[in-house]
Amino acid sequence: MRTRAAVALEAGKPLEVMEVNLEGPKAGEVLVEIKATGICHTDEFTLSGADPEGLFPAILGHEGAGVVLEVGPGVTSLKPGDHVIPLYTAECRECEYCLHPKTNLCQKVRATQGQGVMPDGTSRFSMLDGTPILHYMGCSTFSNHTVLPEISLAKIRPDAPFDKVCYIGCGVTTGIGAVIYTAKVEIGSRAIVFGLGGIGLNVIQGLRLAGADQIVGVDLNNDKKPMAEKFGMTDFVNPNDVDGDLVGHLVELTGGGADYTFDATGNVNVMRAALESAHKGWGESIIIGVAPAGAEISTRPFQLVTGRVWRGTAFGGARGRTDVPQIVDWYMDGKIEIDPMITHTLSLDDINKGFDLMHQGKSIRSVVVY
Amino acid sequence: MRTRAAVALEAGKPLEVMEVNLEGPKAGEVLVEIKATGICHTDEFTLSGADPEGLFPAILGHEGAGVVLEVGPGVTSLKPGDHVIPLYTAECRECEYCLHPKTNLCQKVRATQGQGVMPDGTSRFSMLDGTPILHYMGCSTFSNHTVLPEISLAKIRPDAPFDKVCYIGCGVTTGIGAVIYTAKVEIGSRAIVFGLGGIGLNVIQGLRLAGADQIVGVDLNNDKKPMAEKFGMTDFVNPNDVDGDLVGHLVELTGGGADYTFDATGNVNVMRAALESAHKGWGESIIIGVAPAGAEISTRPFQLVTGRVWRGTAFGGARGRTDVPQIVDWYMDGKIEIDPMITHTLSLDDINKGFDLMHQGKSIRSVVVY
Ligand SMILES: NC(=O)c1ccc[n+]([C@@H]2O[C@H](COP(=O)([O-])OP(=O)(O)OC[C@H]3O[C@@H](n4cnc5c(N)ncnc54)[C@H](O)[C@@H]3O)[C@@H](O)[C@H]2O)c1
Ligand SMILES: NC(=O)c1ccc[n+]([C@@H]2O[C@H](COP(=O)([O-])OP(=O)(O)OC[C@H]3O[C@@H](n4cnc5c(N)ncnc54)[C@H](O)[C@@H]3O)[C@@H](O)[C@H]2O)c1
Repeated sequence: MRTRAAVALEAGKPLEVMEVNLEGPKAGEVLVEIKATGICHTDEFTLSGADPEGLFPAILGHEGAGVVLEVGPGVTSLKPGDHVIPLYTAECRECEYCLHPKTNLCQKVRATQGQGVMPDGTSRFSMLDGTPILHYMGCSTFSNHTVLPEISLAKIRPDAPFDKVCYIGCGVTTGIGAVIYTAKVEIGSRAIVFGLGGIGLNVIQGLRLAGADQIVGVDLNNDKKPMAEKFGMTDFVNPNDVDGDLVGHLVELTGGGADYTFDATGNVNVMRAALESAHKGWGESIIIGVAPAGAEISTRPFQLVTGRVWRGTAFGGARGRTDVPQIVDWYMDGKIEIDPMITHTLSLDDINKGFDLMHQGKSIRSVVVY
Repeated sequence: MRTRAAVALEAGKPLEVMEVNLEGPKAGEVLVEIKATGICHTDEFTLSGADPEGLFPAILGHEGAGVVLEVGPGVTSLKPGDHVIPLYTAECRECEYCLHPKTNLCQKVRATQGQGVMPDGTSRFSMLDGTPILHYMGCSTFSNHTVLPEISLAKIRPDAPFDKVCYIGCGVTTGIGAVIYTAKVEIGSRAIVFGLGGIGLNVIQGLRLAGADQIVGVDLNNDKKPMAEKFGMTDFVNPNDVDGDLVGHLVELTGGGADYTFDATGNVNVMRAALESAHKGWGESIIIGVAPAGAEISTRPFQLVTGRVWRGTAFGGARGRTDVPQIVDWYMDGKIEIDPMITHTLSLDDINKGFDLMHQGKSIRSVVVY
């Protein structure tokens, strides 16, 4: 079939919206009509050329929602008409990782996904002249239609609005999941969130959901304060306004350090401050941000010997097929908010404007609606 | 009263064995006759002058066992004749730390202990000319008699031999506790232990006790192999004998990385290798070793974002009054071994020989018997 997609032809160039060929689903695969997709920093990271593993030409996008049109042979858990959210972290429920209680990093389709192809080693996308176009993060939601492995799709309730729940495909789940699945924050905890962008705001509402008593937000940009307060932030700190040592200030503000701290900036110096403002004896610091290639974190080992714990999280520790439908329910039940974070809605033809808004820091999330 | 002690008069000098004055126990304090004491690297660290917090003159030693002679006003949990192990990490059972489920770092007497005095701010030890001598780590087991807070003593069974169970006061508990209380190693785990000295051997027997399937030991010294095998090591790796990358070799040997890795060297480069040889998705690395002042650990944050966890442990995460008596029971019941690790027994007059043996790498543990 033919479909319309925004194609990344090469690094550093705007996306080009064009007609492309899409082959139907093979065994274990599913054809999905994407109804809406968010634009995330990771798409920008790859498009810019900064991602050392970026491959071109490719169809980017990994934060979508849509409807199943057709299933390939052997697909049993989905049927045409089902509403789905694509998963860049699959959940096969049978690999060593899926069967391990401590991780969500299913490895079943990991290798081929990293190479931009389906599990059989080939791409379903091509230019009208036949040149293959690569998949991206196993999702390629910047195409109106896409093919994914069955295990890379979470089936969600049919009444959830695509243009909102697409954000659960990455940002919402990453932020809320870091709190609920990775940190396992207990009611009454004190927490600090570094970076109040699209991820940090979701960490904040995750903390509110978990019943945290104190939620300190840290950002260099004072404009982030009102929105973060709306999502549950109790205290705001701009490092530029702190006299002296930021860590010392945060330790005092939280009465000895926070039970949990989160980095949602991707800056390795912030990651260190996050660890060191965690409480002696039991404070845990969770790295969400993705650092520039080659950057390293460091600290004195004494910080860990005296009881702090350093962790990271990918996709918020969520097992996509199991946890994403539940997060959709939380949204539909009003337990979490998404609407105020979706600051811009665009058509596919305007997708490059979404990247501009991100660069200008004007958007929290831009969503493309097909 | 008067007693005999090995006194550290100044940094970098041998200890001097002499008569000293010892005041009786004040409120909440206990007078103990020390029957045996181990000589640990931390005593050496302080005596050498490398410890930036070292204070002199002081009576070192923190790995002892003895008998209660007298209790001060208000002491209710101990009476004369009780057998005890001094605790450099107290357990008051009422501070914020003792009441928190995730830490053993009781803070009740921490500040005064660090200053070398009892909780009332004064020392019980003095020279015969009246010059005060400081306590050390709240224990000062290099004195035949010493005074400690009630909360810094674990009451143990009376049939346990002092010259063996004194080692539970630090080394045994640190190593076994890192496995049992800090890492909470599950049966069937694969583990790597870096450094097969007095601490590393106890990590190994802790792993055997916890039912680990694979226990890899890593040491630069091949002479460490036979003893480590006796304690349960299943594979030995000398980094000097590995062609190419040590981490890659260990990941292969453990089938993808270890579930748990432990640094018992104090070398920050080893700490990094320990983290990076932990399994993607769920491997946890525990820092036991104490690094030189100012040294820092580092790694790429991606190591944590892909699921590895970095922790540390102090006194093996053990709550002394609760856990130390149980470890003594494990020894008496033959669940753990101590005797082969005590390679040298000395009199107090020969205590400096114990430090020489440590410098020469000839001892695992030297014990002074009074
Ligand atoms: N681990 C995962 O699974 C995962 C998934 C998605 C995104 N991410 C990463 O999360 C990070 C945050 O993403 P986002 O979309 O929220 O980005 P964003 O740009 O919307 O927000 C980042 C925020 O951090 C603030 N900031 C920057 N430097 C700071 C500093 N030194 N101190 C305090 N605040 C500072 C900025 O002002 C901004 O508000 C990125 O690194 C992204 O790559 C990780
Ligand atoms: N966290 C705590 O509560 C605590 C308590 C006691 C001791 N410690 C620390 O534990 C560490 C170990 O103590 P120990 O008494 O076993 O010391 P040790 O000297 O007896 O043993 C250290 C071992 O490490 C080996 N080693 C050194 N460099 C190495 C390298 N690069 N690679 C592999 N092996 C190497 C040595 O050959 C030796 O066998 C020390 O740093 C000590 O200060 C910590």
